[in-house]
Amino acid sequence: MPPNSQASSVSRPIILTGDRPTGPLHLGHYVGTLLNRVAFQRTHQQFVLIADAQGLTDNASNPTKIRDNILEVTLDYLAVGIDPQHTTICLQSAMPALSELTLLFLNYVTVARLERNPTIKDEIQARGFGRDIPAGFLCYPVAQAADITAFKATVVPVGDDQVPIIEQTNEIVRRVNRQAGRIVLPEAKAVVPTVGRLPGVDGQAKMSKSQGNAIFLSASPEQIRQAVRQMYTDPDHIRVSDPGRVEGNVVFTYLDAFDPARDEVDELKAHYRRGGLGDTALKDRLTNVLTTLIEPIRERRAQLAQRPSDVLDVVRAGTNKSRSVTQSTMDEVREALGLFALL
Amino acid sequence: MPPNSQASSVSRPIILTGDRPTGPLHLGHYVGTLLNRVAFQRTHQQFVLIADAQGLTDNASNPTKIRDNILEVTLDYLAVGIDPQHTTICLQSAMPALSELTLLFLNYVTVARLERNPTIKDEIQARGFGRDIPAGFLCYPVAQAADITAFKATVVPVGDDQVPIIEQTNEIVRRVNRQAGRIVLPEAKAVVPTVGRLPGVDGQAKMSKSQGNAIFLSASPEQIRQAVRQMYTDPDHIRVSDPGRVEGNVVFTYLDAFDPARDEVDELKAHYRRGGLGDTALKDRLTNVLTTLIEPIRERRAQLAQRPSDVLDVVRAGTNKSRSVTQSTMDEVREALGLFALL
Repeated sequence: MPPNSQASSVSRPIILTGDRPTGPLHLGHYVGTLLNRVAFQRTHQQFVLIADAQGLTDNASNPTKIRDNILEVTLDYLAVGIDPQHTTICLQSAMPALSELTLLFLNYVTVARLERNPTIKDEIQARGFGRDIPAGFLCYPVAQAADITAFKATVVPVGDDQVPIIEQTNEIVRRVNRQAGRIVLPEAKAVVPTVGRLPGVDGQAKMSKSQGNAIFLSASPEQIRQAVRQMYTDPDHIRVSDPGRVEGNVVFTYLDAFDPARDEVDELKAHYRRGGLGDTALKDRLTNVLTTLIEPIRERRAQLAQRPSDVLDVVRAGTNKSRSVTQSTMDEVREALGLFALL
Repeated sequence: MPPNSQASSVSRPIILTGDRPTGPLHLGHYVGTLLNRVAFQRTHQQFVLIADAQGLTDNASNPTKIRDNILEVTLDYLAVGIDPQHTTICLQSAMPALSELTLLFLNYVTVARLERNPTIKDEIQARGFGRDIPAGFLCYPVAQAADITAFKATVVPVGDDQVPIIEQTNEIVRRVNRQAGRIVLPEAKAVVPTVGRLPGVDGQAKMSKSQGNAIFLSASPEQIRQAVRQMYTDPDHIRVSDPGRVEGNVVFTYLDAFDPARDEVDELKAHYRRGGLGDTALKDRLTNVLTTLIEPIRERRAQLAQRPSDVLDVVRAGTNKSRSVTQSTMDEVREALGLFALL
């Protein structure tokens, strides 16, 4: 039993996590973040932010994509076992204090500093923005700083590529605290998951909807079978009798991630290495493993999807609670900085 | 009688104007903007925005300066005759929809475009920011676009140096309307006052609190006398009998701006040019003119200053009304872009 489990939720450390609603979630999210959230909700006061405003920073020409995926992402959350009794799910755009805090923080960070942010540099390149970076995109680390601090989160799970965002957040926190002359906002700690990132079914480093190499949590058995069939194995493993390579073989990477029978997977690896084990047999096994994993999620998801307004009620309730939390922080920051409070 | 004076206030064109509360207002504001506002409130639906959030973009290290000047600026407004019955005075930081709209607009403008803004370029140089521009400062034209459009203002009085801000606003308006597929926001028209800018008492091009060359609307007769005494005239006009120069002579510039007896001023100019008119006589006249102008403003201001909470009630009432106006616009923009509305 973890040491915090008997504490009231108020005294638990606050964790902020979330997703940009740009598409339904997939197995990459499942191993990378969703499983952790299901665990964290027992030990932490957890807020899961549906970052629709941030989603617009590189989807301004396609805002309906963001709108339509808010429900999809929430369905995924509930289907994997994120429990509204233990986790507060909330919608970024419906909390004005986050926008207010972002604009305030923008005064405490320089343009040069934002441009030096390695995450932003990489992402600008990845998105092909060149000089035409939307200003909202350049500023999104500041918006994330507002999100994190508005909830007074001290624990923020991130991918290793997002660690500079937390550093940026803490710089702003220290700047604001220095200006206020006292600690008004806590610093946050980045928690990088120990499990490696799940590659796409095509062997690319990252599973991603936009790359078309993802297996969604809503995948049907047939979709799972198709996805596994096209999976990258060992291109030199031509005949069944040939020795095969396990490293970089996506099927084995997935078996390592999802097959509960570790011993059997080890035996399969040995067999594959010495030759005599065909890709088809391996892929059949993986198909079964993934179907067993996804099937209950998919079913629960399908059931929930029949009551979309109930699902959105969960977001509504979480957002109402979060609106009050974030507004309190904004009020505190205003007061600490000596800003004017009209009301 | 102007053609609009019989129309209901709703059908009048909407005008947005305002000030950053960085100090009490002075004679430069009086001729440049305040007199116009007193006139516009009869013909337009006028909103006067106290731009405290914008004031922070280059005063983040001194937020109490902004806080303390909100009351000062409001006192100036009321003292010169801006009438809450005809003008809505409101506080920027107390309208969250302005922050929300700003963040949304930031997605529709590129960093390169913001950096090309001539107003920003000049101001960055004037403030000595160099590469260390606060991000909030770079983004402030977008915040102004949000202010203008949130009120659906079509008329925006600006100095000639601020015209690029209105161009930037209209670019964003067109981009948002194109994205929405219909006109959701109106374009705004910059109105540049025809009267020239009032120079400082030291002859510098601009009267400014930070330059120490201003005469405030709260100035006592003695402060007015002192300010006029140090006023720049014609350095070659040594003896009373010498011919003097009128052009560039600040005393005459002020007499042109404030002395109601135009014929007498013309006669004084002729006399000064041919010699025989001393600076002291001229300055005495200007002191009288300015004292006559400022005295009732100062007295009314001093009376109002004894009831600060009543004064702030004016701002509170105006802000409540404006909060609802700006929130409606934000809701409309969200709907037009197909964004998600949770509530």
